Amino acid sequence: MMLEKHGHGGDVWTAAELYGLDKNSFLDFSSNMNPLGPPEAAGRIIQEEWRRELSRYPDPDCRELRQRIGEVYGVSASCVLAGNGAAEIIDLAVRSRSPRTVGLLQPSFREYATAAQRAGAGIVDIPLSAEREFDPVWSLAEVQKAAREAELFLFGHPNNPTGRLLPPEFVRQLTAAGKPVILDEAFIDFSGEEERVSFIRQAAESDRLCVVRSMTKFYTVPGLRLGFAVAGQGWIEAMKRLQVEWSVNGLAQRIGQAVLGDEEYARATRDWLHEESAWLTQALTGLGLRATPSAANYLLFRIPSEWGVTIHSLQEAMGRRGILIRSAATYQGLDDRYGRSAIRSHEDNMRLVAALAACLEDLRG
Amino acid sequence: MMLEKHGHGGDVWTAAELYGLDKNSFLDFSSNMNPLGPPEAAGRIIQEEWRRELSRYPDPDCRELRQRIGEVYGVSASCVLAGNGAAEIIDLAVRSRSPRTVGLLQPSFREYATAAQRAGAGIVDIPLSAEREFDPVWSLAEVQKAAREAELFLFGHPNNPTGRLLPPEFVRQLTAAGKPVILDEAFIDFSGEEERVSFIRQAAESDRLCVVRSMTKFYTVPGLRLGFAVAGQGWIEAMKRLQVEWSVNGLAQRIGQAVLGDEEYARATRDWLHEESAWLTQALTGLGLRATPSAANYLLFRIPSEWGVTIHSLQEAMGRRGILIRSAATYQGLDDRYGRSAIRSHEDNMRLVAALAACLEDLRG
Repeated sequence: MMLEKHGHGGDVWTAAELYGLDKNSFLDFSSNMNPLGPPEAAGRIIQEEWRRELSRYPDPDCRELRQRIGEVYGVSASCVLAGNGAAEIIDLAVRSRSPRTVGLLQPSFREYATAAQRAGAGIVDIPLSAEREFDPVWSLAEVQKAAREAELFLFGHPNNPTGRLLPPEFVRQLTAAGKPVILDEAFIDFSGEEERVSFIRQAAESDRLCVVRSMTKFYTVPGLRLGFAVAGQGWIEAMKRLQVEWSVNGLAQRIGQAVLGDEEYARATRDWLHEESAWLTQALTGLGLRATPSAANYLLFRIPSEWGVTIHSLQEAMGRRGILIRSAATYQGLDDRYGRSAIRSHEDNMRLVAALAACLEDLRG
Repeated sequence: MMLEKHGHGGDVWTAAELYGLDKNSFLDFSSNMNPLGPPEAAGRIIQEEWRRELSRYPDPDCRELRQRIGEVYGVSASCVLAGNGAAEIIDLAVRSRSPRTVGLLQPSFREYATAAQRAGAGIVDIPLSAEREFDPVWSLAEVQKAAREAELFLFGHPNNPTGRLLPPEFVRQLTAAGKPVILDEAFIDFSGEEERVSFIRQAAESDRLCVVRSMTKFYTVPGLRLGFAVAGQGWIEAMKRLQVEWSVNGLAQRIGQAVLGDEEYARATRDWLHEESAWLTQALTGLGLRATPSAANYLLFRIPSEWGVTIHSLQEAMGRRGILIRSAATYQGLDDRYGRSAIRSHEDNMRLVAALAACLEDLRG
């Protein structure tokens, strides 16, 4: 059995079975959360409003939340659909286009392929180059080739697990060629240049571009489930028709409204990440690992082949010490030398690096 | 615009727009909640565990919750699928069978037809008889006829808005004839004879029977979103393949586990309903309305034709007084003489009856 039994990081239930430790005791670098924890407003709403929000139906139309999202991002509320996490939004965005084939960068977030399969679509792979540090700018010709076969494209911006942003030409060329594109911007708030690089405003005015946002990573509320889509009204309505009733729970709607546009929290997050991303990249490099430059709050790294150490053995050794890292061997185009680690607080990152150093020394024998 | 703009009761956002009152001020008889409010354990978990449950991913496999459901209902956890409310479970149960046609009782819960449409299926209507007080036992021949056309059946047990339970022959005959049947037992906990009438144990051993349960009505947590299915393992796995990741939020999983099998709460609920159902039925009858006998916590009633009063005018007059009732005119097979009211606490029910008396007097002029 492997830690990614259910395909993802953050699975402390499986970790507890594998490593024999309490599920609440792990230091988790296998899912990518903001170490600042939920914004203050989340706790206040929980304390004051839990009874009301639990004991009545949530607004089936998410009116106040969509209104607030529209204000914050400068788009019409009619171009916004809220969902039960970005995972539901991706599923609806794909199904609503009924594609026969979906073009995906490889490696990319595994849910993209799963969403395509659920919709009965085949997959057209667009390889990223490990030699070019997975920068998609080097795959432009491959994308153009894929556009002859794929009816829909689904990209991470930034991509997961690589942390690389897309070049604007990617999206421009595809939509100009009449291809619908779904951009998963789940981690873009971390990039520090969201304003400049996000496609969210273009999406609101396009019938071929759908931007997916997650609110759970940046605001540290993954247990709450909240994501949204921005796209032209026609695409949004098609997604809404496939969505089940009351899909977004009451606390998610209330907390989502309250935390959006908390500028102080956003600034503190970007300050922390700017510092820690540089520190951890350097620390991993210092251990001899090769880290990919990342616009997000995680780092893809590679164990040098000559060490003869697999990510599985490293993950297990770390897990037994109570620290979870993500194997990236399950991503298409990567192999068992690759791992992914979240970037956490400085204190946590120091614990990670110390444990990695100890485990790697043991494993290299 | 009508109160059921989004197809359901409990929409205080639309009510506020329509009646010009604060959305938190309504006395809501338009959705059917247990007036006891959330069990004590819900509040305790919210207070003690909210931070942890918000700030980590929920278990994608709902292991502890499914285990607990299995224990409480005497079925294997592998025959249980938890979902984002019964609405998601119904959607998955229908889509996983890819039916071309779905047989539905009329009137019945509107989400059944919507779920069939989302799956691209046509609908085969099975009329219930108003003269027979919508008792499905009188529609047995109609069901047999429908079995020649419909590939899948979806029934409420008890049915909504009528509150009537299904006769066992219904299900037995259809499954014996090889037809898959989905039974929505969302309100069965209220019936006081759940043990005897539920099909949940049969479902766990059948590849043709899927029982859907909601945990949000009985335990008054509709804002949390929680439902589950029990069926043979093959059907459960097919549903799971269509379900989006992390569909059940963390608090729903924790609270669901904790409240299940709270015998004291269940007894108090049944005692209250036994008394109030009889009281409210009699009170409505006393006003000259005709109430259908109900196994659930709501009553379908009819305004006598000769009064010349529609449910719309009654609903509006009540809404302006801050009391929401459900129009049942939107249900197929009913007309604008029909309404549905939740059964609430004795105090609330007295307010309902007094307001109905006053409004009806005004409207009859």
